[in-house]
Amino acid sequence: MGGILGIHSPQPIAAAGLVYLGLYALQHRGQESAGMAVADNGTIRIHKGMGMVANVFDDRHLAGLPGRIAIGHTRYGKSEATYPIGIHPLSAITKYGQIAIACNGNLLNPASLRRRLLQKGSVFQTATDSEVILNLIAKGEEANLEDAVAGVIPQLRGAYAAVLLSHGKLLAFRDPYGVRPLVLGKLGEAYVVASETAALDSIGAVYERECRPGELVIISDKGLESRQVVTLDRPAFCVFEYVYLARPDSNIGQQNVHLIRKEIGRVLAREAKVEADLVIPAPESANSAAMGYAEESGIPFDFGLMKNRYVGRTFIQPTQDLRRQGVSMKFNAVRAILSGKRVVLVEDSIVRGTTTSQAVQMIRNGGAKEVHLMIAAPPFTHPCHYGIDVPREGELIASGRTSDEVAALIGADTLHYISPAGLCRAVGRVMKELCLACFSGEYPAGLPESGDQAAMPPGEFEKEKERGR
Amino acid sequence: MGGILGIHSPQPIAAAGLVYLGLYALQHRGQESAGMAVADNGTIRIHKGMGMVANVFDDRHLAGLPGRIAIGHTRYGKSEATYPIGIHPLSAITKYGQIAIACNGNLLNPASLRRRLLQKGSVFQTATDSEVILNLIAKGEEANLEDAVAGVIPQLRGAYAAVLLSHGKLLAFRDPYGVRPLVLGKLGEAYVVASETAALDSIGAVYERECRPGELVIISDKGLESRQVVTLDRPAFCVFEYVYLARPDSNIGQQNVHLIRKEIGRVLAREAKVEADLVIPAPESANSAAMGYAEESGIPFDFGLMKNRYVGRTFIQPTQDLRRQGVSMKFNAVRAILSGKRVVLVEDSIVRGTTTSQAVQMIRNGGAKEVHLMIAAPPFTHPCHYGIDVPREGELIASGRTSDEVAALIGADTLHYISPAGLCRAVGRVMKELCLACFSGEYPAGLPESGDQAAMPPGEFEKEKERGR
Amino acid sequence: MGGILGIHSPQPIAAAGLVYLGLYALQHRGQESAGMAVADNGTIRIHKGMGMVANVFDDRHLAGLPGRIAIGHTRYGKSEATYPIGIHPLSAITKYGQIAIACNGNLLNPASLRRRLLQKGSVFQTATDSEVILNLIAKGEEANLEDAVAGVIPQLRGAYAAVLLSHGKLLAFRDPYGVRPLVLGKLGEAYVVASETAALDSIGAVYERECRPGELVIISDKGLESRQVVTLDRPAFCVFEYVYLARPDSNIGQQNVHLIRKEIGRVLAREAKVEADLVIPAPESANSAAMGYAEESGIPFDFGLMKNRYVGRTFIQPTQDLRRQGVSMKFNAVRAILSGKRVVLVEDSIVRGTTTSQAVQMIRNGGAKEVHLMIAAPPFTHPCHYGIDVPREGELIASGRTSDEVAALIGADTLHYISPAGLCRAVGRVMKELCLACFSGEYPAGLPESGDQAAMPPGEFEKEKERGR
Amino acid sequence: MGGILGIHSPQPIAAAGLVYLGLYALQHRGQESAGMAVADNGTIRIHKGMGMVANVFDDRHLAGLPGRIAIGHTRYGKSEATYPIGIHPLSAITKYGQIAIACNGNLLNPASLRRRLLQKGSVFQTATDSEVILNLIAKGEEANLEDAVAGVIPQLRGAYAAVLLSHGKLLAFRDPYGVRPLVLGKLGEAYVVASETAALDSIGAVYERECRPGELVIISDKGLESRQVVTLDRPAFCVFEYVYLARPDSNIGQQNVHLIRKEIGRVLAREAKVEADLVIPAPESANSAAMGYAEESGIPFDFGLMKNRYVGRTFIQPTQDLRRQGVSMKFNAVRAILSGKRVVLVEDSIVRGTTTSQAVQMIRNGGAKEVHLMIAAPPFTHPCHYGIDVPREGELIASGRTSDEVAALIGADTLHYISPAGLCRAVGRVMKELCLACFSGEYPAGLPESGDQAAMPPGEFEKEKERGR
Repeated sequence: MGGILGIHSPQPIAAAGLVYLGLYALQHRGQESAGMAVADNGTIRIHKGMGMVANVFDDRHLAGLPGRIAIGHTRYGKSEATYPIGIHPLSAITKYGQIAIACNGNLLNPASLRRRLLQKGSVFQTATDSEVILNLIAKGEEANLEDAVAGVIPQLRGAYAAVLLSHGKLLAFRDPYGVRPLVLGKLGEAYVVASETAALDSIGAVYERECRPGELVIISDKGLESRQVVTLDRPAFCVFEYVYLARPDSNIGQQNVHLIRKEIGRVLAREAKVEADLVIPAPESANSAAMGYAEESGIPFDFGLMKNRYVGRTFIQPTQDLRRQGVSMKFNAVRAILSGKRVVLVEDSIVRGTTTSQAVQMIRNGGAKEVHLMIAAPPFTHPCHYGIDVPREGELIASGRTSDEVAALIGADTLHYISPAGLCRAVGRVMKELCLACFSGEYPAGLPESGDQAAMPPGEFEKEKERGR
Repeated sequence: MGGILGIHSPQPIAAAGLVYLGLYALQHRGQESAGMAVADNGTIRIHKGMGMVANVFDDRHLAGLPGRIAIGHTRYGKSEATYPIGIHPLSAITKYGQIAIACNGNLLNPASLRRRLLQKGSVFQTATDSEVILNLIAKGEEANLEDAVAGVIPQLRGAYAAVLLSHGKLLAFRDPYGVRPLVLGKLGEAYVVASETAALDSIGAVYERECRPGELVIISDKGLESRQVVTLDRPAFCVFEYVYLARPDSNIGQQNVHLIRKEIGRVLAREAKVEADLVIPAPESANSAAMGYAEESGIPFDFGLMKNRYVGRTFIQPTQDLRRQGVSMKFNAVRAILSGKRVVLVEDSIVRGTTTSQAVQMIRNGGAKEVHLMIAAPPFTHPCHYGIDVPREGELIASGRTSDEVAALIGADTLHYISPAGLCRAVGRVMKELCLACFSGEYPAGLPESGDQAAMPPGEFEKEKERGR
Repeated sequence: MGGILGIHSPQPIAAAGLVYLGLYALQHRGQESAGMAVADNGTIRIHKGMGMVANVFDDRHLAGLPGRIAIGHTRYGKSEATYPIGIHPLSAITKYGQIAIACNGNLLNPASLRRRLLQKGSVFQTATDSEVILNLIAKGEEANLEDAVAGVIPQLRGAYAAVLLSHGKLLAFRDPYGVRPLVLGKLGEAYVVASETAALDSIGAVYERECRPGELVIISDKGLESRQVVTLDRPAFCVFEYVYLARPDSNIGQQNVHLIRKEIGRVLAREAKVEADLVIPAPESANSAAMGYAEESGIPFDFGLMKNRYVGRTFIQPTQDLRRQGVSMKFNAVRAILSGKRVVLVEDSIVRGTTTSQAVQMIRNGGAKEVHLMIAAPPFTHPCHYGIDVPREGELIASGRTSDEVAALIGADTLHYISPAGLCRAVGRVMKELCLACFSGEYPAGLPESGDQAAMPPGEFEKEKERGR
Repeated sequence: MGGILGIHSPQPIAAAGLVYLGLYALQHRGQESAGMAVADNGTIRIHKGMGMVANVFDDRHLAGLPGRIAIGHTRYGKSEATYPIGIHPLSAITKYGQIAIACNGNLLNPASLRRRLLQKGSVFQTATDSEVILNLIAKGEEANLEDAVAGVIPQLRGAYAAVLLSHGKLLAFRDPYGVRPLVLGKLGEAYVVASETAALDSIGAVYERECRPGELVIISDKGLESRQVVTLDRPAFCVFEYVYLARPDSNIGQQNVHLIRKEIGRVLAREAKVEADLVIPAPESANSAAMGYAEESGIPFDFGLMKNRYVGRTFIQPTQDLRRQGVSMKFNAVRAILSGKRVVLVEDSIVRGTTTSQAVQMIRNGGAKEVHLMIAAPPFTHPCHYGIDVPREGELIASGRTSDEVAALIGADTLHYISPAGLCRAVGRVMKELCLACFSGEYPAGLPESGDQAAMPPGEFEKEKERGR
């Protein structure tokens, strides 16, 4: 996952401070590391570090990063041991001058790109896709940076969004399928690009439009130039952004995510009826869907599981072990609400099932007579190769199991998923505009290349392999 | 504020790990420092530090604190500069052996107690009330620790709860008015005392009963002994625990706090009717009251202000300046929900008004036509001398202003408070069982002694004075 | 050991900065912790921490400690686990107002003093002697602080020196035997007290005189007042200060320590003649004695063992294990100098023998034909109860062994100690003015009380017991 | 400066631990950062960080670096702000597999090499010479790594020594003039390369020979292969290694450095006679030369300036300001030794003169009647372009001044330098085998290219420019 942000102002502006606020608004997309690069007067300065935005930056750092053009990045929690050298943005000098790049998502063909580059004499100091992109740009035959970047994008198979800074320009581009999100806004005269509209809001910028799949946006003092570098017949926006990833206060294509999730809950209520006394959300990502389910079903809504707000988001923690420990410190069942009730527990999605299983257990301990699980997503049966860090297929509880089997495993009385068709209807898009690979196994942008990990160094990169890329 | 916890098990048990989990559950009551003391085989070991529970303790620390009797403490965020020597628990040797103590709340007569003790040759190394209590105990003429503590409690004027550890015993006591909460639970054979029931839940302990005002509880391998050390004609439980302080999943006297807050919202809806299209909570402490208001009024409930969960609780941050900055990074108004609507904004209470004022402004920016503010507490007009860190009277926005004046200042169309009588009805208690001093100026346990700060050293303690004690 | 320092200026002066420089000059006396207290306008501020002076203080700390009266302390490396609460100076409010104290050396009767104080209601939060002294002062019946301190000194059996700060005064006192050093100097109008004259030099102060055994010095704006609180028939200055502890550039009673050590070497050369080609010092504390030995014997002096200056002083490191590991990283034998030579290795003293044994081995590896060990101190056979952290008797290599036996153990061809009489002659003092307990077992100030450790809490204090006090 | 080390063992061995010990022994050559890379089973692992060896590594790190082939590096203190990304070793994947490199010294043509590489599509993420070398290797047309490295060396103009690690091999090479040192040793079957012989000693390795100028050494399981890649008619070993840089216990070409420095002192005594009572060394780098001077002149040697061993080496501290402050905390003059004496102060070299000036002042304050300064090096008049961090010409006190003028500035009565010819005689080498550029302005390996800094990015690299490269 990860979040990216870029800002380019023709007038003097403290871009670093705005990127800081924007990164805060994107913190839910990645908490492992944070960084920014700011261009000022022929100099690009970088500050970055492991940890959350608030830990990486302080006033002094921001004051040391003057300039009106900047990019920022928050990295998604993969593994504790990740080597700091890979923290974004990466900065390098190339024949086109110094550039800095921040990228989220996943390339599908990094090894073959690396192999080709190595043959041409490139060196790789990190395991990042961004370094691959930097080297492709640096090998460009084009006259200028924009053309070089435009020449690179078609070579990048995968699901990604990137921001790139040169001394006078901000470039941003999105993969040809538009799997990962990227939006464009304005703050006065300044242009802003960001992973989500909430980041625009956080700095007072106004939403303009989505960056288009395969589009390269070049922002300079002369304004914005758009190049449609690759055009495909079908977009494939990640449906999981609707279901779980995006902030509820973000918009995706003019629609508010919270309202979309309520609609998902409503559709689910129509698809999966159950006799019950109470609808409760799994805290706290399923609030919206649960409200929608309650409204549509007429069953009262309440909070039966309370969250300790001093513990982080389960999904984003690195290890299964920590996840398990995290849960008991995170939830609390409210007996006064649950006791004697037939409870509908709405969950945004179910991956390994660990958290949900504990939630169901706590609800029963709280005195509930029945627990009916409603999942606001279809069965999660296939790994994501497009940038979401999910477990291998074998760890996905829905993989190879009927909903009754999953219910039994989880300890719920019944379990219902929303149908893929219902989900698409709720988000207001036709199926072929979306990436539903994690539910369907159909990967619109293709599968990762295989068998050529040889081009990756065993030391730095073994972590990646372990995660089953 | 602050949170305390104690555990005594007659069987071997890793008490430190349980205290750790319990402190996590009490983290909302204080984030400035955390600490615990564990008795083991004639040794009392302590680990404590500045910062939140997760930062102060790691596995290694817990492994180094074996033992089956333990106490813990989280301190409320007062001031960054607070000297680490005052972190709880305090440990000392006395004529009764080594003891450790953790205390929350406020003494009203610390200076006169100090003065008396200084004359008798005591030395004070910290500015804490706990050190005063330690010295009073150490000066006891009684034969044993329990009797000495029982002799000290009547001398302690104020609002407090404390846990105290000796080599074989856990003692806990509560001020004679019972202003600050303290509950008693069991985990198998072990006894647990804690500031809130949520801490019992977090370690799987079962609620037994409230500690009574003026009660001293002595837990040893022989079981629990209760002594009613002071008996008053009236309790004065802090009503603000219902309104704001306690976790929604805690119970106070068998009643769930979330449900009580919903009831507060319902009573408010009956008292203060308004024509509107939407009820939204101020995130996220007013969720319960807003739900109640919506249910009673029939006006639809939704989330119109979203919170960035990566920023801490406003009320608990130390400086006004940080508070101001915090808000913009914290909330986001959802235009799709607010646009064109007449909005009821429910807020748990209003202190300085800074946060609320910004919330109202954001709601208007989000397109709302009207903003009606409903406060789930009476006007907050008087300082708390009983352990809640609130501003001086002059900074309380409700002090000396009508609700219309406050509405105008805040930028709301109308503003309504729940009545004191309504609040009492909602929490199910008569007024004379509660402390409503912050709303009424009537301080059941009296005012702090004045004019004798001379007994406090200027260096260490000037911070305290600044805060207007 | 440890080092202390105090400064009192009648005019405005940045006392903290001077104490900082002075502590740097005393760093060799203790590296475990450092701290200072500064009185300013009715306030006493403290900053202290674990580690060396350079790590504990930075510019910001010093700027935050204004004032013209200050004391400082560096603590000797005892044990890693020592609890930070015991870092000096200690500060407390007493009936005489706020005071701060820093103390080095050892009380011999802390437990009986504690026991008495506990019976009178004192509490002890640390294991330090200073807290005992604080409590004795606080229990004083006298009218003012000076009289109270004067009343306490006769109760303190042991070897110690202390500085004490009140709002307007600096007090300093030294044990009645004068075991531990304390000197008095002037910097303009300001008075300075310090453990060694090198600390006076480091801030440009001029040596005035030694503080006398049993003397209490009271420095106020009115000048210096001296009270001879206790008068004994015999002083007992620690001879090990001459041999090892003091900096070579310090003076003891007008005599330079480096020159004294050269004289020790000369006397040793007269007492212990040997046929040899080369005299080398054990690096680097025996430089002076080795130079004296070479001058007197006529055998050429050179450096045959070189030190890696990036490793700390062996003697001061906490564990035997680290000591062993430390040596190989610390020394290097120079083959070009040693090869084929009959070498005299001069060592200041021999405690466990570990380091010396390795040095001898390295010299042989470097090609030396013979190694003759000359020890600039008599056999170290008895533990120090007066503040030097030495091993138990069983670990002292000289205990119960002839010099030939020690030579064999160490691997030297011969081994000679200076005689006690020779040592006294070299330092220019008669035996009965010195403490030679570590060599003779005669403890002028008596032995520590025994059997009453019961008054010390097992937790905090078990470390102390382990060290065989 | 900096220090490098490499080890290759055909048998299993904990190479990381040995590199750690070796880096400790090279710590005097650089204290800004430390790092190592270890090859194990097809994986190269790296650990590195800012600060001294002891701070960068702990047991855990070493345990996490298994393997029998390793390289290490300590970087010389240049500037506090140096960006961590440039810490050595650098590791990268190239067409020849993963390699790691550590390099000390200075390239003279980095910008033109960079420019050429940029045109061919290289990217540069750091300002290090090592990254240039990595890219040159990666662009090789040769069949294997050894041949590629051999092809790169002739392109590298400058003064350098490097170690390079691949999965099975350790490579080491030295610039064609042999300006920077590199020695070869054996530890059992294992080969060791290091900047100084003291590092060999520290791990028990035995000196074999110097690496030759322009030699590439390739060590694999098959043994050592040597290739004389470049052959020049004249070597140019840095004479400053003899004068100051090397440890006294190191050997340079079979001769011990301490003995060489004594000989320098002797030659100086013959060249510059003076009437005096005492010879003292500037602490502590001039001990050897001062001993030689004393022996030759017959004037007694003693220590008149004592060093506080808890402050680091002056020369190596980054800023002039810190240098100034450092001195007063570092030295102390011993009045008992100096008073009334005509003093010869021997100094290894004089750069800015700040330290020496203060030393002279302190000696006078200590009561000396006369101070005669003897410098064990010729006048330091030209900057070093070969890796020693010295000030610009304008800051060199000897630049454009006669020795009398310098004496006057410093405050000495007289000042004498050793002659270049005398220095060469003392070190036993003819002038044309040495680099004496800092004294003569004749740069055997040429001057740095000029005017093409354009290829370096302004941001990262401005620090370098500031230092006048």
